[in-house]
Formats: sequence, C-alpha cells, structure tokens
Amino acid sequence: MTHTSVAIIGAGPAGLTLAHLLHRQGVESVVFESRSRREVEETVRAGVLEQGTMRLMRETGIGERMDREADIDDAIDISINGRRTRIDLLGLTGHHMAVYPQHEYLRDFIAQRIEDGGELLFDTTVDEVTGYDGDEVTITYTAENGMQETITADYIVAGDGSSSPHRAPILELEGSERTKFEYPYAWFGILVNAPQTQKELIYATHPEGFALISTRSRSVQRYYLQCNPNDQVEDWSDERIWGQLHARVDGEGLTVSEGEIFDRSVLRFRSAVTDPMQRGRLFLAGDAAHTVPPTGAKGLNLAVADVSVLAPGLVRAIKTGNDDLLRNYSALAVPRVWRAQHFSYWMSAMLHSVPEQGHFQHRRRLAELEAMLATEAGRRYQAQQYVGFDLPTFDL
Amino acid sequence: MTHTSVAIIGAGPAGLTLAHLLHRQGVESVVFESRSRREVEETVRAGVLEQGTMRLMRETGIGERMDREADIDDAIDISINGRRTRIDLLGLTGHHMAVYPQHEYLRDFIAQRIEDGGELLFDTTVDEVTGYDGDEVTITYTAENGMQETITADYIVAGDGSSSPHRAPILELEGSERTKFEYPYAWFGILVNAPQTQKELIYATHPEGFALISTRSRSVQRYYLQCNPNDQVEDWSDERIWGQLHARVDGEGLTVSEGEIFDRSVLRFRSAVTDPMQRGRLFLAGDAAHTVPPTGAKGLNLAVADVSVLAPGLVRAIKTGNDDLLRNYSALAVPRVWRAQHFSYWMSAMLHSVPEQGHFQHRRRLAELEAMLATEAGRRYQAQQYVGFDLPTFDL
Ligand SMILES: Cc1cc2nc3c(=O)[nH]c(=O)nc-3n(C[C@H](O)[C@H](O)[C@H](O)COP(=O)(O)OP(=O)(O)OC[C@H]3O[C@@H](n4cnc5c(N)ncnc54)[C@H](O)[C@@H]3O)c2cc1C
Ligand SMILES: Cc1cc2nc3c(=O)[nH]c(=O)nc-3n(C[C@H](O)[C@H](O)[C@H](O)COP(=O)(O)OP(=O)(O)OC[C@H]3O[C@@H](n4cnc5c(N)ncnc54)[C@H](O)[C@@H]3O)c2cc1C
Repeated sequence: MTHTSVAIIGAGPAGLTLAHLLHRQGVESVVFESRSRREVEETVRAGVLEQGTMRLMRETGIGERMDREADIDDAIDISINGRRTRIDLLGLTGHHMAVYPQHEYLRDFIAQRIEDGGELLFDTTVDEVTGYDGDEVTITYTAENGMQETITADYIVAGDGSSSPHRAPILELEGSERTKFEYPYAWFGILVNAPQTQKELIYATHPEGFALISTRSRSVQRYYLQCNPNDQVEDWSDERIWGQLHARVDGEGLTVSEGEIFDRSVLRFRSAVTDPMQRGRLFLAGDAAHTVPPTGAKGLNLAVADVSVLAPGLVRAIKTGNDDLLRNYSALAVPRVWRAQHFSYWMSAMLHSVPEQGHFQHRRRLAELEAMLATEAGRRYQAQQYVGFDLPTFDL
Repeated sequence: MTHTSVAIIGAGPAGLTLAHLLHRQGVESVVFESRSRREVEETVRAGVLEQGTMRLMRETGIGERMDREADIDDAIDISINGRRTRIDLLGLTGHHMAVYPQHEYLRDFIAQRIEDGGELLFDTTVDEVTGYDGDEVTITYTAENGMQETITADYIVAGDGSSSPHRAPILELEGSERTKFEYPYAWFGILVNAPQTQKELIYATHPEGFALISTRSRSVQRYYLQCNPNDQVEDWSDERIWGQLHARVDGEGLTVSEGEIFDRSVLRFRSAVTDPMQRGRLFLAGDAAHTVPPTGAKGLNLAVADVSVLAPGLVRAIKTGNDDLLRNYSALAVPRVWRAQHFSYWMSAMLHSVPEQGHFQHRRRLAELEAMLATEAGRRYQAQQYVGFDLPTFDL
C-alpha cells in the first residue's frame, strides 16, 4: 500500500475512535501504533466514560460489551472527612456514567477494526511526517520487521499522546500557543486485587489530602491518594498506603477494602492546551493536543470529543472537496477543551488539600464544596459537567 | 439611665437591625454611634439587598419606603468583552433583588428607632467594655457633650465595623482564629450625576479588567473599575475613567452614561473571618466579625444575617434565662459567613483579570464563566447565591 486517505498516528482512544468513525462513512485510513497489541490492550489508564462517549459507542455498533460488562453507575459520592454526599447523576441529568477501563474500550475498537478489515499496524513507529503544507502528506515509519517505509496520505492525524512531536510545526504558526499549568499535587495510584469498596466512585477530601476510590472490575480496584509531585513510588509503603486510605475515606460504616497491591505509579498533574490544533493537512487529537489532570475524568472523553468533530470534517473534505468544516476543526474543538480544563481544575481545587495556600483557602474550598452539594442547582451544575455535554451529532 | 438589656456599639446595618428586632420582641437596648446622624445617613456604601434582607424589612414593618423607592430588579447582566448574558434571577430563584443604598436602609431604621422611642445615641463613642466574662457588662463611653459616662448591660454587641477592637478578647480564647486573605486587585469607585446606563446591574469582565455598572438612584450612578491595590485616587483622571469604562463595558448598543463625578475612592479587597464570634456576654456582628470583598454584594446582608441569628438568642436568654441558642450563635452564623466568602471569592476570581497569574488562569476563568452562563443549572447556582438563602425565621 502506498497511499491512504487518512494516516493516523496512535492506537489510543483518539486514533482508534477516529478510524472507526471514518470507516463507517466509507473513508479508509491507516493506524500506526508503536506498541504491541498486547501492551495497548493491557495498559491501565482512564476508566470513566461520559454519556456522549457511551452513546457514540452504542450508535456506532460497538457498545455491546460495554453495556454488558461496564459498571453503569447512577451516582458518585463526595466525601468530606468521612461524611458522604451522593450526587445523583441520573436524577440530575438524565444520564448514567460508565466505569469501563480504557484498555477495555481499546480492545473493543481494535476487535472491530480487525473485523472491518481496516489497517491497524502494531509495533510500527512513525518517524517523520512531511508535506502537510502541500497537496499530499508523506509518512515515514519503521515497520514491525524493522524496515523503514513510506506512505502518502491526504491527511495526517496525530493521536500520538502527550509527547507528540507534531505540535511543533503548529506552534511555529503566528498566533498559535501552548498554554500550560502545573498543580502543586500529584496522585499516587495503585491497582489492588480486592473486592469493591462500594459500587459508585468516592471522591474524598480530608485534611490529609484527597483520595479516590474507583474500580476496574469486581475484583480489581483503582485507588488514588493525593501525594507530593516529587514523591517516588518507594515513598509509599503498604502500611502508609492503607493508613492514608482509611484515614481519608472510611466513615459512616464504610471501610476501604484491602488486598494485594500489584501496580503502583505516580500520576503528575498538568494542564496543557494547544491552540490551534491543526496546520494544513495535519491535525492533532486527544492528548497530543491537550492534557487535563485526572480529577475530572476527562482525558479519554476529550480525545473522543475531538475526533467526533474531526471525523465529519475529514469525511466531508474527502467526499465533496469542501473543507469548510475541517478548517473549523480547531475553533469547534477548543472551547470544549477549555470547559474540560475548567471542570478538571475546579474539581481538583475543591478536593485537594494544599496547606501552603493558607487557612483561608482551606476553609473557602470546603465552603465551596458545601455550597455546591447543598443545593440541587449546585449538584446539577457539577453533575452535568461530570457526565459531559452531548457530542456533535452527525451520521455515525 | 444606668442599665440596659443589650448595649449595641454602632448604628450600621448590624447595630440598627439588631436594635429593631429586639425592640419588636420587647427587649430594650441602647445603640451607641460615634458619628453624627447626618454622616451615617449620607455615607454611600453597599447597595444590594438580598431577598432575605428585603423580607426581614417587610415582615418587621419597615419595608414600605424600600418597596416604593428601591430599584427592584429581576436580573443582572454578566458582560464578557461587551457581550452580555442575562441572569434571570426571578425566573431562576423566584426572587427579586433590590438596589437600595445602605444609607437609605439606615435612614429607615433610624426613623423607625426614633418613632419607637428606642435609645440611639449619635456622636457618642464607646471607649471601653469590661465585665463580659462575669454577670454584667460595663460600658464606658464619651457622650455628645464630651463627658465620659458608664452604663451597665446584660449583653454587649459589637457592631462597630471592620476596625472593631472587640475581636481582641475573643482571639485570646484557645482555638479562636482570625483568617485573612488579600486579593491582588482593588476597585476604583465613583459616584456620578448621570442617568442610568441600564436598570439592571452589569458585571463586566474584559482583558483590561473588571467593571461594575450599578445605580444608586435614577440620577446618581455608582461605577467601579478594577484597579491596582496601590492605586491612589489621583491616578485616575476623568479621561482614564471614562476611557476604561467604555472599553470594558460598552457593546451591543449599550454605552456607559457619563456625568459629573462627585466622589472617588479606592476600595480594598480583603476577606477576614473571626471564629468564634462571641465570648461570654460579648458578641460580634457584621463587619466587626468579618469582611468580604464587595463583588458578591454580601457585606450589608451578612450583617443582617448575623443579627437575625443573634436576636432570637438574646431574646430567649433575656426572657427565659435559657441561653442555649445564644451560646450557639457563632456555630449557627459562621457557616453562612464562609458561604459568603466562597461566593464573593468565586465571583471576584471569575470576573477580575490578573495577568500575573498567567494565560492558563485567564483562559480557565473565562471558560468557567461560560460554563456557568451556558446552562440553566449554572445560572441557577449563581443566582441562588446572589439573591441569598433564607434567613432563619423566628417571631419577627
Ligand atoms: C499513566 C496515565 C494514567 C491515566 N489515568 C487516567 C485516569 O485515571 N482518568 C482519566 O480520565 N484519564 C487518565 N489518563 C488520561 C487518558 O488515559 C488519556 O487522556 C487518553 O489516553 C488520551 O488518549 P489519546 O488517544 O489521545 O492518547 P494515548 O492514549 O496516549 O495514545 C497515544 C498512542 O500513540 C502511540 N504512539 C505515540 N507515538 C507514536 C509514533 N511515533 N508512532 C506510532 N505510535 C505512536 C502510543 O504508543 C499510544 O498508544 C491517564 C493517562 C496516563 C498517561
Ligand atoms: C467604603 C466602603 C464601601 C463599601 N461598599 C460596598 C458595596 O459596594 N457593596 C457591598 O455589598 N458592601 C460594601 N461595603 C460593605 C458594607 O458597607 C459593610 O459590610 C456594612 O456596612 C457592614 O455593616 P456593619 O453594621 O457591620 O458595620 P458598619 O456599617 O461599618 O457600621 C459600624 C458603625 O459603628 C460605628 N462605630 C465604630 N466604632 C465605634 C465606637 N467605638 N463607638 C460608637 N460607634 C462606633 C461606626 O461609626 C459605624 O457607623 C462597603 C464598605 C465600605 C467601608
């Protein structure tokens, strides 16, 4: 093969979702993924699907296993010093949320892609992209067999994650910008073989810091503890982990379930936005364009939102030659990115303890949490942002 | 007179409202005010009444002139770079708000106090308060005639504003605290002889900074411009004032109305909370206990909220000897103070431009404003806090 309509770098949520949407509209693409299929299918990352992401899966014929196996939750809990308040997502928004691990999401899209006969090249790394300012893009890549090869494409989409080198040419454009922010905290995350602490997620705040109780399956739990951004995995002994989880979360008869810890990592908190997300025939999608801190659970969903704007633009340009929509991709996608940044920042700021910010900020953020939780309007404002706004609808 | 039930320092919103509520329950008090009646009745300060404050006025027979003369508004406008979005307070909360200047509020309470035959001593300064830890308080004051005199009281309420010396004895108590916060901006405020720019208030944000268009009467307008906390009145020429008001607010056919500027002042932004607000027979109310920045328009209303908790406590203690409610004054009043701090901080942070905080915070706060304005839940969350929550009801 020497030419394709759309070359896609990365078999993450952005790349695989885009390939699927394009395929359903009869537009062919090639997906390049440097990692092995196994690695992609086993790396545990995000776990929360917005209502729009669930709907996209269902409406494009890929939601069956998700509907069968995901933890469909009607609510989340916010815990303040062990006192829990329920946010009734379903009652407040009419929508559920799904806890469905990112690698399960990817498995579904990979299986579908293979069934559809679409090109999906694992163990294949894109080395260079040229020609995006002209009529055709040339992609140089190292194939599974170690040989360097090239392919041409009408368009190139970089869905290659947060270290993407393809922001650089966009940032050369006048008026383009990459806006960054670093948070004064991080998460120490563990995967545990343990029964669920409770079905619904618990976002807990406590003078010792934030904690998140989430689940990846009935027998595997994902817990997070606010930690110092400089902490190393070694700084957290099992004793410290369980002591802190119990201190921050237990209460009102609930106890964090313990088990064997089989994965430990420190998750940095960063925000970043690239604007615009395109140049000529080159488009960024997902983490390649933007990073959100994990508190709002927006990372995967924002990747899906990007490509649900990008796909119709590409389809129309390729089928009709009209690239109006495609040229507006960035203008259409960026406002949602900033909304997600706001939501992620807001949730993070309300729930994390930062003694260095002083006592006023401590009391103020607790008052804000209480103001939000005390009224239906406040809970609905939170819940609507949490389950996420509708994705643009087009022929899926 | 040598003894009274309640001695009240200050004829501000806190002191006068308290004296009125006590009088209606048959509890007599003496109000000491160091300034002249004229000065109190002419000093322009706050201007927005919460729905609970309006209701308290009406239900205690003092709302007639307010209902006749106040600007009763159904809405406020939030303006972003000249584009205005209406927050339909009435539709969202079922409540109006009133623009009724603080000195008009005070005039009504002073007139009522005199009609009721209650003690209200202008030009009289309280010098010292002793005995609040014992059975009786002794108040030493300098009377209008320059003579120092004393009076005893069962209780002393310090409603003497933000410089109150009566916080000091409370802060000696173990576990007591005064929590403070300084903001990186201030307001330059003017009073202008000009027709109304529009009936409803406009809260405007713009890269040059915040502006507030408010009104004190049909012919007197109160405008505020975000300025540097170190700015002096002389830093703002008329030309600069009008240039900045037009730049920050004009748009969509609306132009800020100009006129002769007859008052100029710089308003510092501070938050402060004293907790607890009581010690023995001494109680703080209003600005004596706490300061909020003016953005949320909560200063006067919080003073009224304090005394609507304090009055029933005092009445019950004096009439029945049961001081349970009175001893819980602080515990009942402080949560509302923190809610008001949160709201004032939130409104301030969303609307003020602070270039030193960097581009991320700039874009994020605009996204937050837009998220709040874009949904009914967001607007209702804002509107409910703006019109204020109900005051505790007791026999008024
Ligand atoms: C460790 C970690 C934990 C996370 N946890 C959470 C969480 O708890 N909750 C949450 O909401 N979000 C979480 N996120 C965020 C979320 O997982 C991401 O937002 C999401 O994966 C973004 O999808 P994407 O498709 O844009 O990028 P990615 O998923 O990063 O996919 C990019 C893909 O491109 C491939 N690639 C890169 N370069 C090349 C190349 N040159 N050639 C070929 N292939 C290439 C990579 O191997 C990768 O598979 C986490 C992210 C990380 C990194
Ligand atoms: C300049 C200024 C502008 C403001 N603008 C706004 C605004 O735009 N919007 C808003 O919502 N809020 C505003 N506020 C806040 C609002 O006016 C106050 O929150 C409100 O006045 C508090 O009422 P208070 O009764 O607690 O105190 P005050 O109104 O300060 O009353 C205290 C009274 O005690 C008297 N006193 C003090 N010491 C003694 C003593 N030893 N003996 C006898 N009497 C004494 C004082 O003379 C004063 O009259 C403003 C405040 C100031 C200072």
